[in-house]
Amino acid sequence: MIAVTAFAPATVSNVACGFDVLGFALESPGDEVTARPLPAGVRIDAIEGDAGRLPRDPTRNTAGVAAQALLTRLGETRGVSLTIRKGLPLSSGLGGSAASAAAAVVAVDALFGAQSSADVLVACALEGERLGAGSSHADNIAPSICGGFVLVRHQMPPDIVRLPVPEGLTAVVVHPHLEIETARARALLGASVPLEDAVRQWANLGALVHGLHTGDFALIGRALEDTIAEPRRASLVPGLAAIKAAAMTAGALGCSLSGSGPSLFALCARPDLAPRVGEAMAAAVRRAIGEDPEVYVSPVAPRGAHVVSSCVS
Amino acid sequence: MIAVTAFAPATVSNVACGFDVLGFALESPGDEVTARPLPAGVRIDAIEGDAGRLPRDPTRNTAGVAAQALLTRLGETRGVSLTIRKGLPLSSGLGGSAASAAAAVVAVDALFGAQSSADVLVACALEGERLGAGSSHADNIAPSICGGFVLVRHQMPPDIVRLPVPEGLTAVVVHPHLEIETARARALLGASVPLEDAVRQWANLGALVHGLHTGDFALIGRALEDTIAEPRRASLVPGLAAIKAAAMTAGALGCSLSGSGPSLFALCARPDLAPRVGEAMAAAVRRAIGEDPEVYVSPVAPRGAHVVSSCVS
Repeated sequence: MIAVTAFAPATVSNVACGFDVLGFALESPGDEVTARPLPAGVRIDAIEGDAGRLPRDPTRNTAGVAAQALLTRLGETRGVSLTIRKGLPLSSGLGGSAASAAAAVVAVDALFGAQSSADVLVACALEGERLGAGSSHADNIAPSICGGFVLVRHQMPPDIVRLPVPEGLTAVVVHPHLEIETARARALLGASVPLEDAVRQWANLGALVHGLHTGDFALIGRALEDTIAEPRRASLVPGLAAIKAAAMTAGALGCSLSGSGPSLFALCARPDLAPRVGEAMAAAVRRAIGEDPEVYVSPVAPRGAHVVSSCVS
Repeated sequence: MIAVTAFAPATVSNVACGFDVLGFALESPGDEVTARPLPAGVRIDAIEGDAGRLPRDPTRNTAGVAAQALLTRLGETRGVSLTIRKGLPLSSGLGGSAASAAAAVVAVDALFGAQSSADVLVACALEGERLGAGSSHADNIAPSICGGFVLVRHQMPPDIVRLPVPEGLTAVVVHPHLEIETARARALLGASVPLEDAVRQWANLGALVHGLHTGDFALIGRALEDTIAEPRRASLVPGLAAIKAAAMTAGALGCSLSGSGPSLFALCARPDLAPRVGEAMAAAVRRAIGEDPEVYVSPVAPRGAHVVSSCVS
């Protein structure tokens, strides 16, 4: 094998009631990483789509660190050179650093025919994510690798629970042109939360998991409530309440920040409702910040990071 | 109808990772309430099994208040007299006040042929529970009325989620002869919790709900971890760590306080494992406090509060 290219999708983490433990994968957009063998070490040959903002130093690049973690785990003495194509906007709250790390480990794993388990891939990609996010949470990494709706019961060692996705469940994501540093968004949360808010959060998360199992869209909608992160981060996204209200009026089940924002997601019970929800959210973003957001509509994608091309000669 | 007797089962609330929102019903023990019509008002004729400790004043008795709440809700001008037979030890952490309130509303509802919904019965019984517990949480009331494993997504109006119970799941409950006031146990918790502990709690609750849906007993076991209440209440039950360890060594999936204690529950994947787990826990209680506890073994009971006899003449 002389080159393997893998794609890893954008992910929505937190999902209103699952701060730091829940996420789901979109079909697209996503990042691509091409891995080629080197005699030793990890090198980054090129990064496209980042406007020169991401570090080329592999020890400071999320994909580079993830690739090195996997090589170490495999006991592999050979190295890799990586080419990264960012399909995801930086600092958008759509799991960009996770997608690069996920694509890197999947590409490197395939390059060496290692067939590592999802747990191993998640653990190694997490090493890269730790760089990007300042702390490591697998709620973007795990869905980007596994696809679907994923609950991270435990971080390390990973205890990853793949939740079912009811037929029809469709995501809308809007990305307003604001940038939020994950570390700053995290600092807004503080180290403790009112017990009452926490109780409400776990009641909602339990109900959401039940709703996904039973296809009870009304319950899913009621459970998509964030008592922890969103209220404390609301100031980061101008017009947040109006954007949420627009999504709900247009027929969404729920709407909240994607990760630490600035992107917002909504979930819809049917694909045909999603475009209207996306338009309503985009219009509300335009009114709030005077600029059109990117809008993505996608099913909750069953497939996570995967090889898109291999070149043997 | 001149008399209706209803039985309502003991319940285990919190269930390790579901503080204030999760509970399940046992088959037995439980409380019985007999309701007879009166021209008006609520009266308590007799209470058996409480050693004279519960108030006979219906406005200060959990069953009396619950009965009155239902009469009011039904617009019923007639009244009831109640006889209460406590099958549950007082202040045991097994939902005793909830069982009396649940049996009372089910008996009164049947006496007047009202056929109220579970939501109405829960809401009215909760009025009674508020007296006993100092604050009202439906995590004992809802499973005592509905049976099975119940998640209370929202308190009022009630949003009650009935979870599936995997075949074989069996509960062991031991009741050491200690008394813990719910209000005191609650005060130990404080008003806020570390975000990190809260995150771990909702990850576990989500995983437990998934485990109940999929019958994944290993996951259920991993999820039966309490990062919120048990660590802060451990001092209330001498030997708590040893009792838990005994349960796990004997084959339990998990073990924690039932409600605010002093009772402890364990869950087992198969009925035949339960007696051994019960004996191990009882022996550990004996070593810790020098006295034998009551031991109850029961499936997670699909049936909640129900009429056991009606007398028409």
